Amino acid sequence: MPHIDLIPGIHGIRGPMTFSPETARPLNDLANVLLRANAHHPDSTLNEGERELIATYVSARNDCYFCQTIHGAVASHHLGDTEWTLVESVKCDYQTAAISDKLKALLTIAASVQQGGKYVTTEQVEAARLQGATDRDIHDTVLIAAAFCLFNRYVDGLATTAPVNNPDFYRNRAIGVVANGYAAADPQ
Amino acid sequence: MPHIDLIPGIHGIRGPMTFSPETARPLNDLANVLLRANAHHPDSTLNEGERELIATYVSARNDCYFCQTIHGAVASHHLGDTEWTLVESVKCDYQTAAISDKLKALLTIAASVQQGGKYVTTEQVEAARLQGATDRDIHDTVLIAAAFCLFNRYVDGLATTAPVNNPDFYRNRAIGVVANGYAAADPQ
Repeated sequence: MPHIDLIPGIHGIRGPMTFSPETARPLNDLANVLLRANAHHPDSTLNEGERELIATYVSARNDCYFCQTIHGAVASHHLGDTEWTLVESVKCDYQTAAISDKLKALLTIAASVQQGGKYVTTEQVEAARLQGATDRDIHDTVLIAAAFCLFNRYVDGLATTAPVNNPDFYRNRAIGVVANGYAAADPQ
Repeated sequence: MPHIDLIPGIHGIRGPMTFSPETARPLNDLANVLLRANAHHPDSTLNEGERELIATYVSARNDCYFCQTIHGAVASHHLGDTEWTLVESVKCDYQTAAISDKLKALLTIAASVQQGGKYVTTEQVEAARLQGATDRDIHDTVLIAAAFCLFNRYVDGLATTAPVNNPDFYRNRAIGVVANGYAAADPQ
């Protein structure tokens, strides 16, 4: 049961976002820039699916069921990963997953950020650059990982609900997110 | 030295915010709602100084020098804590600090959020309610703590610079923040 009085049946981050639309607005704006718009930034080499994979991976490390499942579904939708095989392999062991060496190097940075900002090392950043990551990619990776340390804590810190054993719930939401973006009534 | 090419002399979060104004906007909007506007929310019992104390305490737990110092300076300005005595006592041991029992109970929740969302317990929330905390106060405490898990990681994950042994730098910034709010060119 959630720690505060949220509307029953509105799951995950949508619960507190409905409770507090004033803060939902900038949180959704941030998600839309980082996970969607910046994929088209001239200095970016990370597409939307890769950005969602970073979000999913960090959410899994933070053990946030709702966030890792919805963002995993959005990543899968972008990447044509119908059975979520790729997403599961990234969560399980990204070093052996079928992703680029650049994304592997950026996921190493994301894993450090999840632990704490000071865990990111010059060596990790240099390794990402050697694989073709730009300053914009490194910036966005750090900020995506940091943002999901917020979203995950918001979702679990208020003990929100989440449908379990119901992949179609997340698949259907993912279709809406890919079509329309993150909005006040949409899940993160 | 920062991990990406930031303008020298623009310290703390202002470095990456100048690099990326598209993400700075929602981040500043979030800070303004949570730390300033919501202090005047009809269901809130937390004033601006108390909100900044929560931000400072979480930033100290995350060992983020820039954030704990600027938000400590803003809290001190709001609370008339000229020598930063109260702020230091909250960072050192909030249970013995000269703050309300309600704020102590909310800082306990903030400390749990800093560790991870699932560390927040029903008992901690009930204890805060017994001291007069509203659903809005509990919501805002969780989100302030979660937000500073983002801000702190953004600041340190990119290895930004910060003036040290220079309290007047932070005191002067605090005056601007209290007068004008958080903006793209202002520190968090």
